Amino acid sequence: MLKGIAASAGVATAKAYKLEQPVVVIEKIDGTVPADEVAKLEAALAKTVKDIEGVKERAAKRLSPEELEVFDAHLMMINDPDLVGQMKAMIENDNVNAAYAADQVANSTVAMFESMDNEYFKERAADVKDVTFRLKCNLLGLEIPDLTAINEPTIIVAHDLTPSDTAQLNEFVKGFATAIGGKTSHSAIMANSLEIPAVVGAAGVLEAVKNGDVIGLDALDGVIYVNPDDETVDELAKKAVAYAEEKKALQVLVNAKSITTDGHEVELAGNIGGLKDAEQVVANGGEGVGLFRTEFLYMDNDHFPTEEEQFEVYKAVLETLKGKKVVVRTLDIGGDKKLSYFEFPEEMNPFLGYRAIRLCLDRKDIFRTQLRALCRASVYGKLCIMFPMIATINEFKEAKALFEECKAELTAEGVAVSDNIEVGMMVEIPAAAVLADEFSKYADFFSIGTNDLIQYSMAADRMSEKVAYLYQPYNPSILRLINMTIKGAHKNGKWVGMCGAMAGEPYAVPILLGLGLNEFSMSATQILKARQIVTKLSFEEMQDVADKCLNMDSAEEVLDYVKSVVE
Amino acid sequence: MLKGIAASAGVATAKAYKLEQPVVVIEKIDGTVPADEVAKLEAALAKTVKDIEGVKERAAKRLSPEELEVFDAHLMMINDPDLVGQMKAMIENDNVNAAYAADQVANSTVAMFESMDNEYFKERAADVKDVTFRLKCNLLGLEIPDLTAINEPTIIVAHDLTPSDTAQLNEFVKGFATAIGGKTSHSAIMANSLEIPAVVGAAGVLEAVKNGDVIGLDALDGVIYVNPDDETVDELAKKAVAYAEEKKALQVLVNAKSITTDGHEVELAGNIGGLKDAEQVVANGGEGVGLFRTEFLYMDNDHFPTEEEQFEVYKAVLETLKGKKVVVRTLDIGGDKKLSYFEFPEEMNPFLGYRAIRLCLDRKDIFRTQLRALCRASVYGKLCIMFPMIATINEFKEAKALFEECKAELTAEGVAVSDNIEVGMMVEIPAAAVLADEFSKYADFFSIGTNDLIQYSMAADRMSEKVAYLYQPYNPSILRLINMTIKGAHKNGKWVGMCGAMAGEPYAVPILLGLGLNEFSMSATQILKARQIVTKLSFEEMQDVADKCLNMDSAEEVLDYVKSVVE
Repeated sequence: MLKGIAASAGVATAKAYKLEQPVVVIEKIDGTVPADEVAKLEAALAKTVKDIEGVKERAAKRLSPEELEVFDAHLMMINDPDLVGQMKAMIENDNVNAAYAADQVANSTVAMFESMDNEYFKERAADVKDVTFRLKCNLLGLEIPDLTAINEPTIIVAHDLTPSDTAQLNEFVKGFATAIGGKTSHSAIMANSLEIPAVVGAAGVLEAVKNGDVIGLDALDGVIYVNPDDETVDELAKKAVAYAEEKKALQVLVNAKSITTDGHEVELAGNIGGLKDAEQVVANGGEGVGLFRTEFLYMDNDHFPTEEEQFEVYKAVLETLKGKKVVVRTLDIGGDKKLSYFEFPEEMNPFLGYRAIRLCLDRKDIFRTQLRALCRASVYGKLCIMFPMIATINEFKEAKALFEECKAELTAEGVAVSDNIEVGMMVEIPAAAVLADEFSKYADFFSIGTNDLIQYSMAADRMSEKVAYLYQPYNPSILRLINMTIKGAHKNGKWVGMCGAMAGEPYAVPILLGLGLNEFSMSATQILKARQIVTKLSFEEMQDVADKCLNMDSAEEVLDYVKSVVE
Repeated sequence: MLKGIAASAGVATAKAYKLEQPVVVIEKIDGTVPADEVAKLEAALAKTVKDIEGVKERAAKRLSPEELEVFDAHLMMINDPDLVGQMKAMIENDNVNAAYAADQVANSTVAMFESMDNEYFKERAADVKDVTFRLKCNLLGLEIPDLTAINEPTIIVAHDLTPSDTAQLNEFVKGFATAIGGKTSHSAIMANSLEIPAVVGAAGVLEAVKNGDVIGLDALDGVIYVNPDDETVDELAKKAVAYAEEKKALQVLVNAKSITTDGHEVELAGNIGGLKDAEQVVANGGEGVGLFRTEFLYMDNDHFPTEEEQFEVYKAVLETLKGKKVVVRTLDIGGDKKLSYFEFPEEMNPFLGYRAIRLCLDRKDIFRTQLRALCRASVYGKLCIMFPMIATINEFKEAKALFEECKAELTAEGVAVSDNIEVGMMVEIPAAAVLADEFSKYADFFSIGTNDLIQYSMAADRMSEKVAYLYQPYNPSILRLINMTIKGAHKNGKWVGMCGAMAGEPYAVPILLGLGLNEFSMSATQILKARQIVTKLSFEEMQDVADKCLNMDSAEEVLDYVKSVVE
């Protein structure tokens, strides 16, 4: 029995398949003939391209076009003249062997991406590792195991799974267990998307398991049983059934309203990064999109996306939601989110710096392109636009004026723009929460971004290990700021959503409901559970509960109290 | 006529003395005989020591012992085995001339201090420049002008003034004008301390002035007149008289109460960094010390100051204040304030990181030493202790408990500790302001730190040029946080001070008064002006004014309104 992190819920029992990658040992050979080594590199590159195309073809049977995009990214990398050019230059300048050059360039590229300290670039680092690993294997004549060959119920046990590995998992793979990784690692995200149970970060799992062992995978509690006894097998089977029933019970709620026992209705929406997520939100009964993070359009690119490129994406998302509300957040870049093609100023505290609306109001050319694309897409559904990081009313007014300008411009050009666009703002800066009753005279709605709001209100960067303890969503001071935001909006008849991590937390939902939050936006997979919670609560009671929480001393006190009420 | 920055108020007319420093040209000579060069270096070092001692002796006629400390720092530098060792090593390893080695080592040391991006280390950089300039002049046989030789009314015109220059100014120097520098540059601070008018940052002043020209220096408006006509001379004379009268009018208030026309009394106190500042506060009619920044005890040191070392300083300050309240802030280090002898963790956003109370609660050994020293000193006056960067009530309780422990420990050791120590906290984190009514159940008082409070509430680092516009003390959201803090404290019968830059601003005083602030703490030189303002206002009227400000839209609107009311 091993403990790990339950990264994708579920229970499964099946035979183990140990995924063992070939061991790559790179020797440095000096004084080679460059022309020969370049030829070897070219041949290995060609085989790598062919391999990836093959994996993509096989994976296409199970994955959606969006999920297959990872392979296009891999193909682009392996054809990248810059990456390949560096390898060739090293061979020619240093007279070294192709494998050594490939390894050196791969390592420095990975290191560069990893140093960027941001989820997006960390994923890119994983992709580069994946692709160049394949290239090095081809240079050394090593075989990479073919997971598509699996043809009986199997649980994969591995050190870690690469993006190509996970893309190849077929219907016989009932789950996986890895030695490293966390809840947000690539393999965890993929397991959730494929809806197969996964336990990650189980150190020692490779040593504890032999090929053919029976594995009981409890990815509800994060436990891996190796050759479990009959009793455990029975228990796991029961747990699997109970989990399936719970899922079915939730499934019933897909088309239900989010309404309390005493008739108070709220909206449960989803957070998305693109079209694929939007489809998931709809499939999970989301009543709209509460946050469309458009920064991925910019980060997943080598240039500022054009008006046309953006228009196509916004249109597709609005159409997917079929008239349900889509709240699009305008470009929220800066802080820890950088672009490869744009230079940010050096700042001592980037989280307190030039980012989001501050950058957009400074670089109106960039902002205008996005606003025009949004206006053009607005006729394909119900569009709401919100500005991130608004600190003062003047900033909001300036951004709103620019939106009006773009709208008028397009109308003058004869382009149709909806007359129904709501223009609101994120409340994620304490100054905005405190002055919400004034802001709501101008903004059509608010969406509370709890991650940043907590970070600034507590003056604590939650990425900084030594002060992470101050990330306290349940602290009464945070609840008061949320309350001020909600009451401030309602004073002028405006609605308030929340699109931070807090909106989907089972113990936060009762409090937020009681405070009067109108819209809860979370990841698609949390929606049904939240709806189940809402439908069992009384709004009147939760108003009392929330009031009490506002006058407590600490996050611990609040959490203990809510648990005692709800459970 | 030239424009500059009025850095030290006053008006003067006198003959110009152009301070022209020798031009140091450093040549690199290779292949020298190391022993010869080391000997040259030793000789120049010895002469430099003698020079500095001479300057100190002459300056002693005018400066206080504390002001003379700059020379001890200089002597310590020139005797620093590390600095001198580096120069010798370079001579010996690279066979270069002494002047070149001295220059290289000086440059890299200055660069190191300057890169630290902090006022304290920038001053150290200025000191290193000053000392090594003298050393290089001695190596090259160049003469540094002797300002103590000035014996007729003079206005000094210079590119900039070094710390040694300003320390040598005698009573014949009626003011100075420099081409570079700002309000917080060393020369500006020194001019204020010497109470002579100064205009700094007047580009082109050196070119525009010849020795012996008559200079009219209007350091109220930041204007320099070169050979002014009779009319201008008359005007300046009138202005000088008016300024002197205004100063006299303020001087009358030194022993007056800070009381409004309708009898509401507040306390005007001073911010200090050490004993010298404390004396200034008393001389300027301060009713106490509202902020004693103890971090200088740590920064101006090469080790954590011992209990004994700290005790002596706290005792001296308490005695200087003769029973008037002294609010001591416990160690507020981290962020941009580093120590040469302590390693801070690498953080992406140090302002949101491991600093102040967070560090002290993590390193209780360091904290304990300070608390014990404070307890021991408490019997020499009226001590209040406050903790910086409190975000949660639990943090306050933990810090307070540690204080109680130290107090009990000392009592058990038979050491006298006052039973009258108030234990409060800084309110500089939005979460604390929002929950002030709960915090005030535990804290004896609050002191609002506006610089950080504004920075976190707006999520804007004011050192970051691109977002500096968000540093808005008059923004209604900031005023509301201040109001919550004050009302929250009063609810439980506690008093509230403010020790940020805002407390001394002429347009902020009326609002803060109206909000009910009890204590205003500012730099010593602002106290009398603030008292003059307070004594002319009606508390009842200011309460109305403040109420109106709380419901405005922007900082501009607030400021325009207050100006219209006060002027």
